Amino acid sequence: MNSDSVAMTDLCEKMHKPETVCIFGTGDFGRSLGLRLLQSGYNVVYGSRDPKNSLLLPKGSKVMTHAAAACEAFVVFVAVQREHYGFLSSLASDLEGKVLVDVSNNLKRGLYPESNAEYLSRLVPGATVVKAFNTISAWALQSGGLDANRQVLLCGDRSDAKQQLMDIAQSLGFTALDRGSLRVAAELEDLPLQLFPLWRLPLNIAICLTAFIFFYALTRDVIYERVTNGKDIAFRIMISLANKAFPIVSLVMLALCYLPGALAGFLQLYNGTKYRRFPDWLDRWMLCRKQLGLLALAFGFLHVLYTLVIPIRYYVRYRINVYTISLVKDNKTYEFDNMAAWRYDSYYSMGILGFGLFVLLGITSLPSVSNSLNWREFSFVQSKLGYVTLLLCTAHTFLYGWDRFLKPSSYRWWMPPAYMLSLVVPCVVLILKLILITPCVDSKVTRIRQGWERQGKTSANNIDTKTNQPLMA
Amino acid sequence: MNSDSVAMTDLCEKMHKPETVCIFGTGDFGRSLGLRLLQSGYNVVYGSRDPKNSLLLPKGSKVMTHAAAACEAFVVFVAVQREHYGFLSSLASDLEGKVLVDVSNNLKRGLYPESNAEYLSRLVPGATVVKAFNTISAWALQSGGLDANRQVLLCGDRSDAKQQLMDIAQSLGFTALDRGSLRVAAELEDLPLQLFPLWRLPLNIAICLTAFIFFYALTRDVIYERVTNGKDIAFRIMISLANKAFPIVSLVMLALCYLPGALAGFLQLYNGTKYRRFPDWLDRWMLCRKQLGLLALAFGFLHVLYTLVIPIRYYVRYRINVYTISLVKDNKTYEFDNMAAWRYDSYYSMGILGFGLFVLLGITSLPSVSNSLNWREFSFVQSKLGYVTLLLCTAHTFLYGWDRFLKPSSYRWWMPPAYMLSLVVPCVVLILKLILITPCVDSKVTRIRQGWERQGKTSANNIDTKTNQPLMA
Amino acid sequence: MNSDSVAMTDLCEKMHKPETVCIFGTGDFGRSLGLRLLQSGYNVVYGSRDPKNSLLLPKGSKVMTHAAAACEAFVVFVAVQREHYGFLSSLASDLEGKVLVDVSNNLKRGLYPESNAEYLSRLVPGATVVKAFNTISAWALQSGGLDANRQVLLCGDRSDAKQQLMDIAQSLGFTALDRGSLRVAAELEDLPLQLFPLWRLPLNIAICLTAFIFFYALTRDVIYERVTNGKDIAFRIMISLANKAFPIVSLVMLALCYLPGALAGFLQLYNGTKYRRFPDWLDRWMLCRKQLGLLALAFGFLHVLYTLVIPIRYYVRYRINVYTISLVKDNKTYEFDNMAAWRYDSYYSMGILGFGLFVLLGITSLPSVSNSLNWREFSFVQSKLGYVTLLLCTAHTFLYGWDRFLKPSSYRWWMPPAYMLSLVVPCVVLILKLILITPCVDSKVTRIRQGWERQGKTSANNIDTKTNQPLMA
Repeated sequence: MNSDSVAMTDLCEKMHKPETVCIFGTGDFGRSLGLRLLQSGYNVVYGSRDPKNSLLLPKGSKVMTHAAAACEAFVVFVAVQREHYGFLSSLASDLEGKVLVDVSNNLKRGLYPESNAEYLSRLVPGATVVKAFNTISAWALQSGGLDANRQVLLCGDRSDAKQQLMDIAQSLGFTALDRGSLRVAAELEDLPLQLFPLWRLPLNIAICLTAFIFFYALTRDVIYERVTNGKDIAFRIMISLANKAFPIVSLVMLALCYLPGALAGFLQLYNGTKYRRFPDWLDRWMLCRKQLGLLALAFGFLHVLYTLVIPIRYYVRYRINVYTISLVKDNKTYEFDNMAAWRYDSYYSMGILGFGLFVLLGITSLPSVSNSLNWREFSFVQSKLGYVTLLLCTAHTFLYGWDRFLKPSSYRWWMPPAYMLSLVVPCVVLILKLILITPCVDSKVTRIRQGWERQGKTSANNIDTKTNQPLMA
Repeated sequence: MNSDSVAMTDLCEKMHKPETVCIFGTGDFGRSLGLRLLQSGYNVVYGSRDPKNSLLLPKGSKVMTHAAAACEAFVVFVAVQREHYGFLSSLASDLEGKVLVDVSNNLKRGLYPESNAEYLSRLVPGATVVKAFNTISAWALQSGGLDANRQVLLCGDRSDAKQQLMDIAQSLGFTALDRGSLRVAAELEDLPLQLFPLWRLPLNIAICLTAFIFFYALTRDVIYERVTNGKDIAFRIMISLANKAFPIVSLVMLALCYLPGALAGFLQLYNGTKYRRFPDWLDRWMLCRKQLGLLALAFGFLHVLYTLVIPIRYYVRYRINVYTISLVKDNKTYEFDNMAAWRYDSYYSMGILGFGLFVLLGITSLPSVSNSLNWREFSFVQSKLGYVTLLLCTAHTFLYGWDRFLKPSSYRWWMPPAYMLSLVVPCVVLILKLILITPCVDSKVTRIRQGWERQGKTSANNIDTKTNQPLMA
Repeated sequence: MNSDSVAMTDLCEKMHKPETVCIFGTGDFGRSLGLRLLQSGYNVVYGSRDPKNSLLLPKGSKVMTHAAAACEAFVVFVAVQREHYGFLSSLASDLEGKVLVDVSNNLKRGLYPESNAEYLSRLVPGATVVKAFNTISAWALQSGGLDANRQVLLCGDRSDAKQQLMDIAQSLGFTALDRGSLRVAAELEDLPLQLFPLWRLPLNIAICLTAFIFFYALTRDVIYERVTNGKDIAFRIMISLANKAFPIVSLVMLALCYLPGALAGFLQLYNGTKYRRFPDWLDRWMLCRKQLGLLALAFGFLHVLYTLVIPIRYYVRYRINVYTISLVKDNKTYEFDNMAAWRYDSYYSMGILGFGLFVLLGITSLPSVSNSLNWREFSFVQSKLGYVTLLLCTAHTFLYGWDRFLKPSSYRWWMPPAYMLSLVVPCVVLILKLILITPCVDSKVTRIRQGWERQGKTSANNIDTKTNQPLMA
């Protein structure tokens, strides 16, 4: 037997991990954290106000008074709500020199002027406070990080203390990222309270657009009919108007998803370099392209369902029936219009293919799918196929309109049909893209994205690899 | 050159990893494990009965007799089927003091009274046996854990041996979790043989419900028609009856998915604390809510397809045709019923929006999507949007029924239409929820979920953070 | 306070990580890498041609001349494009004995005869070159690996240098895999330039099949009608012909996805062992089964949409109208055909259920879903449910055809209807599978997959665990 390797490993093991970790608080989070620490090879000691009454703690852990527990370990997790931090000041001497880990979150934003971690640091000035694990839920700890967020964000003022927490996080199967000094704690405490921050702008755009198109179509169709012919067709609100608003919003938002990329291309051409920052509004816009696209897909999906439901609608069956009967009564025949057959079939076909590609784009933006693609594949799907989708959907809308834009009867009260409005943004995007892919412009943009700069802008630092990424990411 | 840092790194490297790892068995798993170990910086020695005939082994590894290989390393992986463990007892002296890793699985549950790892431990009492890696497939080892399960579960009686395996697992890119003593091995060996344990209860509920609704509708529609009017409409089984069973099962299961949460709320109100365990049946029910919801979505999806296919059905075309012809012959006109237009369109619209939200719920429960949400976002989607979905789907069903429940002709053989049955559970859930969100009840539940306890229940340990999680997870 | 543990940890920390890492190049990748290194506890020094003009570098890093920066660290990342490597030869003395990490990629394949890493190694022969991180994008570094590829592939000639890079990669939250000597670098540099290599073959098959079926149907339907009856029905191209090609391609590709598995079973039976390699074409075929299946699903999805759109087509409405009017004029009634009602409804029902299962198969092949399944569950869904899907879809096609194959009028110009062609491969697969699951054959195959070999083939190394995996993976 190779006794050397044993000794070596034993030594390594000893140095590798702090033997014992202390947890103050025996609630859900404290219990889950303790169990996970035990499973990853640590000793766990709980500090509790009433050590004898502590049930449900993980097997293998010990429970003591807070003071006794603090003495056992160098790292102390404070899994207690901020309101109960008070007792810690009485333990100041026991906690002197220790690493205190603040894992707390608040129930609402802006509840306190100071972050929990900084408050803790003020209460126990002799200890080093590290903010960590607050973005990890008790449930993620229990499930072993298998299908939960694996990233532990931490911050603190001393790097050795942070390093220790990083080691612990890594042993527990998480990835640790240092976000800076303890002043960042407020930011980390806000993270779990966020509610889809990136979705807010796209959602607002979608809601405003939908409301606008809806009222536009309401005026043009229902109110116009009422005023002009005195007919009540308000029942059309439920499906016909919805099925006008949804596809229009979908198309416009899909175009809005590709517009910033095209604008950025022109801006880079104009600047002659890719090393100048985009204006803030463009940056923000580019960051929410994925959300814009996914919302467009959601509206497109509703449009598909609303369209497919058409033939089982009462109103549609009524109209077909009335038409057939009128033909019989007037002894006329339904003249087959070959052009109409081509037009409608092309119109549906474009829509279906466009929607099919759109679903593909949606699937590729699922995190687990996009992770398995390399950069070139991702950009091929999201950029090239994305433009094909936009082209198909725009063609679908043009075929829907056909020659209607020529007929004066389409402009009721000087309002053009809603579908015409929806074509403005997509056409602009497609024209901009068309310019960008003409060989001479394209080669210039490509060179710029590879780090080339126009005369008089060259700086020494622009030798760089993989430079075509930031624009498309 | 900084020679100091080199020395330091060399030292660190030496202490960091056992140089050589031994693998007994040169099958698929042994080969894949060896390759991965080599790729992660280990030396690999294979033990084989016939070292000269061993082909296909990864480049860089050595092959020896079992005894020779065992001497080279401190950690020995036994990648051999249990039936062939016999030869290990003859190697007992070579394996004295070593760490033996049992990676084996069985073909069926309960094949042996004793787990493979415990059997191995009995065969080679001088070695320390660790059960590990049995939940990892050869394929996951080959693909580098990129898109495969990354969690290595292990158990064993000595913590230093387990620590070494944890280090190896981590170097290989896996997350290691200690599950306890070797007695847990039987449990770990059962894991790869499980077949959707969490789906079993929901699937059984779905199957029973579907069968019940199907036979109920069969009796009420087909058999009733046969007995009363002597007409054979059995062809309706294929689509009409299926399209009765699927939506009903979908709605009931969606409601069943939200019922336990509401019950738990009331139970916590009644108990006046969240620190009392729920009854077992409620715990089990709450654990399979995700599965209930996804099955409901699957049935809802089928319902959508069965509905959209209606207008191309032979029977439907026949009926419309017959109706039109009868109108012509009787010289009648189809009176437009404005109320019917409103009703049907609202009915479809509710259904489409409900289904759209339902699909959104389904997408957010994909592991990779739910991982990218924080707790607040996840609970917003799954709880708030979930109740909106349930509300829309219930309204859809009410609109479908309309005033039919008032007509005596609906109660054939005293059996109400099937859709009425489906409304019971959703209405109960919605009423319970309505009570829970009334301001006075809501504030009480919120306080309880934050750790507050009714007088006389307070215990010292309930100071806790992030306490609103376990209920909704 | 436990001063011992502090000292220990400090020591451990010092040995654990090289204090300082140097990065040459301040482009996107260099900046992102530096930020991530800082966040993971490293010191970062940038080497720049113009240290005073370097903006946008992460807070906490230092900038120096290349030579000065190289002296500060043992590991030097070269985040510079290959064309600018020239200046490194002048730094040869400063880089003597250091580890140079080549992270570069090329813009196109085959641009240079030699890999970038080997070129670098030739330029600075005194340093040890490791190729690493080139498959990681700047964006993945920024986003903390949360929803991006987490795998760092590396290669190099000295294992201690590689080990250091592995440690760095692991601290950054990535999984490192050693791919061998520096000669592998060319391969690693090709990885980010790949464009769906596994999808190429299936896509080509899909395109060829679609083209063939399309022209076949065009000849049989449109051209035949033109030549024989002089009627122009070319408008049918847009939907009717597309809706012939898509389902046929879908069914054939689904069958092609299960054919290699069946062939492999027969080959193993014939060989009497699972330890003989399959022929290359079969191996390649088996590797792209997932892609074949997903393409089949995409075509199936289009088929569903094209089918559901039928009742709102102009042509279809026209035909129904004309038929109704002709019935009225000729004073005939539409005879209800009970058999037709059964047939069409069964046909749709099979299709819907088949498509539903198919979607389930698609969802389970999403990386994040398949990762959460164990091997038995994955193979249950993909193999058992897959065959049920194939069976349902084949039955759907048979019911579509019904007795048409008996009618001579179906064979225009001796060409059978296209749907008949589509049934060949699925029937072959189903028959092969039927043979494989007959008890006597099944038990033999199972034994072979468990490592059993026919007399005269036994070799000593075939004691193995988990052996049923490679075939189905």
